[in-house]
Amino acid sequence: MTLNDPRIVAEVEPLADLYEKALGENDLQTLDDLFYAGPETVRYGVGENLYGIEEIREFRKKRPGGSPPRYVLRRVITTIGQDAAVVDLEFQRKGGTKIGRQSQTWFRTQNGWKILAAHVSLMADIS
Amino acid sequence: MTLNDPRIVAEVEPLADLYEKALGENDLQTLDDLFYAGPETVRYGVGENLYGIEEIREFRKKRPGGSPPRYVLRRVITTIGQDAAVVDLEFQRKGGTKIGRQSQTWFRTQNGWKILAAHVSLMADIS
Repeated sequence: MTLNDPRIVAEVEPLADLYEKALGENDLQTLDDLFYAGPETVRYGVGENLYGIEEIREFRKKRPGGSPPRYVLRRVITTIGQDAAVVDLEFQRKGGTKIGRQSQTWFRTQNGWKILAAHVSLMADIS
Repeated sequence: MTLNDPRIVAEVEPLADLYEKALGENDLQTLDDLFYAGPETVRYGVGENLYGIEEIREFRKKRPGGSPPRYVLRRVITTIGQDAAVVDLEFQRKGGTKIGRQSQTWFRTQNGWKILAAHVSLMADIS
């Protein structure tokens, strides 16, 4: 398996950008489109563990205002072969004192690249 | 990409078991063997963000006694095609009050399956 084939990285990077933009705008349709719509999809959030697309959709609908605004501090994308990739990033919420981390595993489907697994957490205080 | 081809799941499950056993025994050699030995490997831990195998090795060496003992509460393994997989699990540390989450992305290399990305975090209090 070749890591970071530039052609594959070039496919995944814009999708990671798109996800970040949609998160900032609380664009639920795009966020939903980027998750794999199956029972296998897992999303561990800062305060919730969600199994399957239905639980993920339910959570997003009920989240007032969406994800708190954030800055991305560092991002690493690593593609695996032609059809899988991981996107890891650190973020800081506006006005927040903790470092956040987001990890996503994407894979290629007939409907484009989708997120199969995501994990978001907040680390220790910065200050 | 076929999710959860039983033959591939049968390859990955024992490795997830092996990782858990090695973590419990603080078997640093096995833990190290199961991580991909490259600069691309990322490990977000409960209190640290590590980039590349060297930072991961350095952290493990300096961790007195290793990872706190834990119980696995729930585990989901999803394989992607023939050569990639995600292992997600929830855990509770012995005597702890928080739910932990561990996410790993594995891929097939010439030296067997390896972890390319890992994220471990503690969630809100259970009680």
